[in-house]
Amino acid sequence: MARYDRAITVFSPDGHLFQVEYALEAVRKGNAAVGVRGTDTVVLGVEKKSAAKLQDSRSVRKIVNLDNHIALACAGLKADARVLINRARIECQSHRLTVEDPVTVEYITRYIAGLQQKYTQSGGVRPFGLSTLIIGFDPYTGVPSLYQTDPSGTFSAWKANATGRNSNSIREFLEKNYKETSGQETVVESGGKNIEVAVMTKDQGLRQLEESEIDGIVAEIEAEKAAAEAAKKGPARDA
Amino acid sequence: MARYDRAITVFSPDGHLFQVEYALEAVRKGNAAVGVRGTDTVVLGVEKKSAAKLQDSRSVRKIVNLDNHIALACAGLKADARVLINRARIECQSHRLTVEDPVTVEYITRYIAGLQQKYTQSGGVRPFGLSTLIIGFDPYTGVPSLYQTDPSGTFSAWKANATGRNSNSIREFLEKNYKETSGQETVVESGGKNIEVAVMTKDQGLRQLEESEIDGIVAEIEAEKAAAEAAKKGPARDA
Amino acid sequence: MARYDRAITVFSPDGHLFQVEYALEAVRKGNAAVGVRGTDTVVLGVEKKSAAKLQDSRSVRKIVNLDNHIALACAGLKADARVLINRARIECQSHRLTVEDPVTVEYITRYIAGLQQKYTQSGGVRPFGLSTLIIGFDPYTGVPSLYQTDPSGTFSAWKANATGRNSNSIREFLEKNYKETSGQETVVESGGKNIEVAVMTKDQGLRQLEESEIDGIVAEIEAEKAAAEAAKKGPARDA
Amino acid sequence: MARYDRAITVFSPDGHLFQVEYALEAVRKGNAAVGVRGTDTVVLGVEKKSAAKLQDSRSVRKIVNLDNHIALACAGLKADARVLINRARIECQSHRLTVEDPVTVEYITRYIAGLQQKYTQSGGVRPFGLSTLIIGFDPYTGVPSLYQTDPSGTFSAWKANATGRNSNSIREFLEKNYKETSGQETVVESGGKNIEVAVMTKDQGLRQLEESEIDGIVAEIEAEKAAAEAAKKGPARDA
Amino acid sequence: MARYDRAITVFSPDGHLFQVEYALEAVRKGNAAVGVRGTDTVVLGVEKKSAAKLQDSRSVRKIVNLDNHIALACAGLKADARVLINRARIECQSHRLTVEDPVTVEYITRYIAGLQQKYTQSGGVRPFGLSTLIIGFDPYTGVPSLYQTDPSGTFSAWKANATGRNSNSIREFLEKNYKETSGQETVVESGGKNIEVAVMTKDQGLRQLEESEIDGIVAEIEAEKAAAEAAKKGPARDA
Amino acid sequence: MARYDRAITVFSPDGHLFQVEYALEAVRKGNAAVGVRGTDTVVLGVEKKSAAKLQDSRSVRKIVNLDNHIALACAGLKADARVLINRARIECQSHRLTVEDPVTVEYITRYIAGLQQKYTQSGGVRPFGLSTLIIGFDPYTGVPSLYQTDPSGTFSAWKANATGRNSNSIREFLEKNYKETSGQETVVESGGKNIEVAVMTKDQGLRQLEESEIDGIVAEIEAEKAAAEAAKKGPARDA
Amino acid sequence: MARYDRAITVFSPDGHLFQVEYALEAVRKGNAAVGVRGTDTVVLGVEKKSAAKLQDSRSVRKIVNLDNHIALACAGLKADARVLINRARIECQSHRLTVEDPVTVEYITRYIAGLQQKYTQSGGVRPFGLSTLIIGFDPYTGVPSLYQTDPSGTFSAWKANATGRNSNSIREFLEKNYKETSGQETVVESGGKNIEVAVMTKDQGLRQLEESEIDGIVAEIEAEKAAAEAAKKGPARDA
Repeated sequence: MARYDRAITVFSPDGHLFQVEYALEAVRKGNAAVGVRGTDTVVLGVEKKSAAKLQDSRSVRKIVNLDNHIALACAGLKADARVLINRARIECQSHRLTVEDPVTVEYITRYIAGLQQKYTQSGGVRPFGLSTLIIGFDPYTGVPSLYQTDPSGTFSAWKANATGRNSNSIREFLEKNYKETSGQETVVESGGKNIEVAVMTKDQGLRQLEESEIDGIVAEIEAEKAAAEAAKKGPARDA
Repeated sequence: MARYDRAITVFSPDGHLFQVEYALEAVRKGNAAVGVRGTDTVVLGVEKKSAAKLQDSRSVRKIVNLDNHIALACAGLKADARVLINRARIECQSHRLTVEDPVTVEYITRYIAGLQQKYTQSGGVRPFGLSTLIIGFDPYTGVPSLYQTDPSGTFSAWKANATGRNSNSIREFLEKNYKETSGQETVVESGGKNIEVAVMTKDQGLRQLEESEIDGIVAEIEAEKAAAEAAKKGPARDA
Repeated sequence: MARYDRAITVFSPDGHLFQVEYALEAVRKGNAAVGVRGTDTVVLGVEKKSAAKLQDSRSVRKIVNLDNHIALACAGLKADARVLINRARIECQSHRLTVEDPVTVEYITRYIAGLQQKYTQSGGVRPFGLSTLIIGFDPYTGVPSLYQTDPSGTFSAWKANATGRNSNSIREFLEKNYKETSGQETVVESGGKNIEVAVMTKDQGLRQLEESEIDGIVAEIEAEKAAAEAAKKGPARDA
Repeated sequence: MARYDRAITVFSPDGHLFQVEYALEAVRKGNAAVGVRGTDTVVLGVEKKSAAKLQDSRSVRKIVNLDNHIALACAGLKADARVLINRARIECQSHRLTVEDPVTVEYITRYIAGLQQKYTQSGGVRPFGLSTLIIGFDPYTGVPSLYQTDPSGTFSAWKANATGRNSNSIREFLEKNYKETSGQETVVESGGKNIEVAVMTKDQGLRQLEESEIDGIVAEIEAEKAAAEAAKKGPARDA
Repeated sequence: MARYDRAITVFSPDGHLFQVEYALEAVRKGNAAVGVRGTDTVVLGVEKKSAAKLQDSRSVRKIVNLDNHIALACAGLKADARVLINRARIECQSHRLTVEDPVTVEYITRYIAGLQQKYTQSGGVRPFGLSTLIIGFDPYTGVPSLYQTDPSGTFSAWKANATGRNSNSIREFLEKNYKETSGQETVVESGGKNIEVAVMTKDQGLRQLEESEIDGIVAEIEAEKAAAEAAKKGPARDA
Repeated sequence: MARYDRAITVFSPDGHLFQVEYALEAVRKGNAAVGVRGTDTVVLGVEKKSAAKLQDSRSVRKIVNLDNHIALACAGLKADARVLINRARIECQSHRLTVEDPVTVEYITRYIAGLQQKYTQSGGVRPFGLSTLIIGFDPYTGVPSLYQTDPSGTFSAWKANATGRNSNSIREFLEKNYKETSGQETVVESGGKNIEVAVMTKDQGLRQLEESEIDGIVAEIEAEKAAAEAAKKGPARDA
Repeated sequence: MARYDRAITVFSPDGHLFQVEYALEAVRKGNAAVGVRGTDTVVLGVEKKSAAKLQDSRSVRKIVNLDNHIALACAGLKADARVLINRARIECQSHRLTVEDPVTVEYITRYIAGLQQKYTQSGGVRPFGLSTLIIGFDPYTGVPSLYQTDPSGTFSAWKANATGRNSNSIREFLEKNYKETSGQETVVESGGKNIEVAVMTKDQGLRQLEESEIDGIVAEIEAEKAAAEAAKKGPARDA
């Protein structure tokens, strides 16, 4: 079994493409990313590496626009991400120019996943070490979407999902707490304080939350929790 | 014998192409797909992975149109499937443009199987980890067809067939229960409840069944079974 | 000696091209194919895999026309066969267009064998896992021919020959029973009942025999055999 | 695990790209480079190898302009650096010609990091053995920036940072001593005497400090330190 | 020493190209070919594999014309031979078209040997498993020639020579029996009865001998031998 | 660690490019080359292999002009040197034609070092086994330069330097004896008698010294030494 | 050390290119070649393999013209030689056409050596197994030259030199016996009787010596030797 895992374009005897699975390992080591689709908003959150002391907090955003109505967050190799993002942005522009209409969220998701697939079937390249969360509003119907793609090139649609470090436990949290109306709160709560959050609405596009806003939400959540706790304890005390 | 299984373009001493057989393993691990050809309808069913709680049930259909009169379902690597489907759709369009006539089901089956074969004979690529079921109506004669292709690039025509996980036992079921007039029922019964079903008729093209319809069919089947059971038991009791 | 058998373009120390020989193994595992050249007819027979219960018996013919006056049957990898057949058909058409004359049987045989040779001398590809039987009538002289090609790219002309599974014992049968005037009977007798048979005559081109016709021939052969047996026993009884 | 580290385009089972990490080793062995962003100046410093006795001290500058308003210093393989620098300069020129505007610091940083990423995903090449520090002023807003890129193709923005030999301890020094108003002093102090220093201001572009100037700064720093020491000791003596 | 023999473009430590030598093994396993140059004729003979019972004796000639005044016979891989022959024939035609003159025998010999050399120096291909004997008349001087080429791409001119199976013992026979005036007899005698023979004269070009003619020559040779034997015994008896 | 040293485009775990270091070994085995930059002259010296008795002493010069005002000497593989020299000469010509100005010494040094770098980063080639010393005068300022390049593609400017066999001890000699005004003497003294020397001045370009001139310099040096010795001993005697 | 010797484009740890050295082994196994430069003539001699009995003595000359005033002899792989010779001849013609002047001997030597170098630095090819001796007269000055090239692509000028089998002992002979006025005698004496000799003079170009002439020279040499011997013994006897 020694060598199926090195040659990209080769199946192992039990039908695995090991390189794709190893690329997933790179994703699992990357910062967590969370997406939550609400009725009128879609929210992305990305865990921030505790920055070095002198690192520029303005520095590279991890949640980026592909077009006015579409945004993306990644888990995995940051340098790989830029390649995918550039290609996707060019595709968005080129679609507008050629077809004179913006892309749909599914269209660009297929495009990104298609690129990822290509790097799993040809020799001389490695898969992208990257899972993406793509959010956006349909430019015609205004319906919000949240998609996920992974290194194998598969994609799927979600109400809420997470990828990267600890994505399993975050996903469990999401499954317990998901409500269509509370995207921001869910994302912030799932990710803790050290998080970059961006909210997209149909009319205003993507807006990166200020740290103060996030702090506000955290405070609110804690207040709610405390109240709930109190409420819970209240009757308990009464007993 | 250690290495015949890694180099794609190499026969083993007993004439095997191991990479093709390993790709079949990927197929055998994929969701089951079932196809049944009736007199006026052709039906495809695809097992649905029990979706994650927050996954979007509207999300990617596994039974897709290649053209108005042709549809396809796959077992195997989903990302590979999209590549084949895209290429096939482009071929359908291009055929209409060039020849000013729609493709036949056999034509597009040959095209897909041909693509699959190419990836078994050249260096630098791996086979598609994919078996397909292709259904459709001949645009000239209105005759329905069901084809299957596999990673080696072979294809064959069927009254009813299955591929992917548990395809052997499903095929046995089909062999016992196949009737030309009951495509939907057979597909639903073969696949159980967690299944995506699409029916194609000559005039109306492909129609994805609603979950409620599938539930209805399941109920009907169970009623029939109960009746049959009752009928069987009836005389028994009489005895 | 460990590795001469994997690299396509490499001789072993005793001058063998192992990949070509392994490809021949794939041929030896394929369905048997038989060809018999008569005075006015040439006949091809191909063993039919006992089809799965629901497989479409109308499905892919194993004996195919390359042009009106030329047909081909294969033993080996079916998907490889389609590649060769397509290339050969295009060559036939292109020859008619360019030279304004149909190809001769030898011409197209050389073309097919040439393709097969190419895949034994260049890197990055594997040999075709395929032997072919090619029949046809010379478009100018009306003389019938039967050719065989193999994975090495060699070809040869025959009165009657077989390839694929059990070809050795079929060839022995042919050597005992070959008569120029009884192509159909010989082919049917050599192959048993589960066989696809096609007969080519100079004026009517290729005609696939119906199952009923094959049954008829089988019956006839058995009647003859019985009569011969009877005749043989007759005098014996008289003794 | 023996071979994941040699093939560039291959992940190891735990999702590492070893070649990129080995290229980082080449960076860690290279001369230290330091960058400090002030309010009106950005400063780069590069450790000078104690030159051979007869080496030309005028010789190749390690801090180079990419454009009037952008400069770069490297740690790692010097010959690789020239390739990156040439490509980046051409991009700056070409951007001016095409868009009729100078590049921003982030633009050229992305360009350089993008080149570095490419060499980690394709076969036939190795990663650049190079980390870069890029400084400059935004041509529109006049805001100063300091970026760092590394062999993986990632980049990040900094107030102050170091790369190459001993970069960890230099970074610790920077974290303790960084003030926005004292770029030159910080760089010189961090690097000791054997250092090449260049200062960029918005209006005057890049200026390489003379050795005498550096000596002056060193003297000043020492004087300050002595004074501070004295001040510290002074009261102590008084006690 | 394990691997010098596999990589085509690699010398072994003692300066050998093993692949070329292994290709020669393929030649040594091929049918014998003999060439004899007389004053007015040049003769080629090729050993015939004892054909299968039903093989077509009209089938592929092993002695072929390259042009009216040049012919070729081979030992080695038959499929490789066709490639060389096709290329050589095209060169002959193209030379006539371009230069308006037929090629000389040496010219086409150099061309064939040059092709063979090419396949020993570049990667991705294997040498031709083929030695050739080339005969012909100079189109200007009418002088007959016999050349031999081998897998290394060397060539040489001969009065008489053999290649392929048993070529050493045939060459010894030729050395004992060569006379300029008896090409046909020598070739037939060297090869025994199971041989294909073709004779080229300046005016009539290549003529394949009928089996009856060969039988005639064999009979003549035997009669002469008997007479010689008788003559030898005659005086012996007298003694 | 077994294989990092073979694949050109691969780092070893500690960040080394072994192939570049092995190429340096080829340099260290090559003839020594020395360069000395004076105020008005630049001098190159190259050790001459003690020529075979019949070798042509007029034969290939080891110090060559790249342009009127630039010359080069090499240590390492002579055949590689010619490739670099040809490319550099063409660049000099092409620069004159395109820009209508001669190249500067630094320009052509960068060009040569750039070529050398390229061969360390791409697959399918090996590094140049070559270090060069490049001398020349700036065509505009008349300032003399001496550069060195090595197989990694780095370059540096020098007052005096050596490469190739024994370059370390020669460099030590240079460090002790370098004076700006005595280029010829220093080169000759550093290299001993068996040396090819060429002197470049701003106005007269490159001039290869005759053997007699070198002998003269050697004699002069020895006379000086003797005098110095005498002077040293003289007072000693007086004592 | 196991594998440096197989990959062409790879240095061994001590800076060797083993493939080049192995190619030299092929040269050392090839026929000896000798060249002697006189004042008015240049002579080449090539050892003749004791030809097979029936080999055509008129057959391929081993000393060939590249142009009227330039000739070449080789040691090593004959088939490789033809490739080099063809390329060199085309270069000679093309130079005449383009520059309207014949090439110089050094020019074509550089061209040949350059080709040989190329095959030592790129992947996918092997070095030429070939050393050459090139003779000729300068078309302008009439000065004769003798050059040698080897598989590494180096070249050098000689008064007399040898390559191939036993070249060391031949070179020793040449060193003892070289006189500028006796080219033919020296070559013949160095090579013994079984030798092909060609003499080039400025006015008459290349002339291959007839066997009779060589015999004559051999006889002359022996007569001279005998005389010398006699002269030596004469006085001895007198004593």
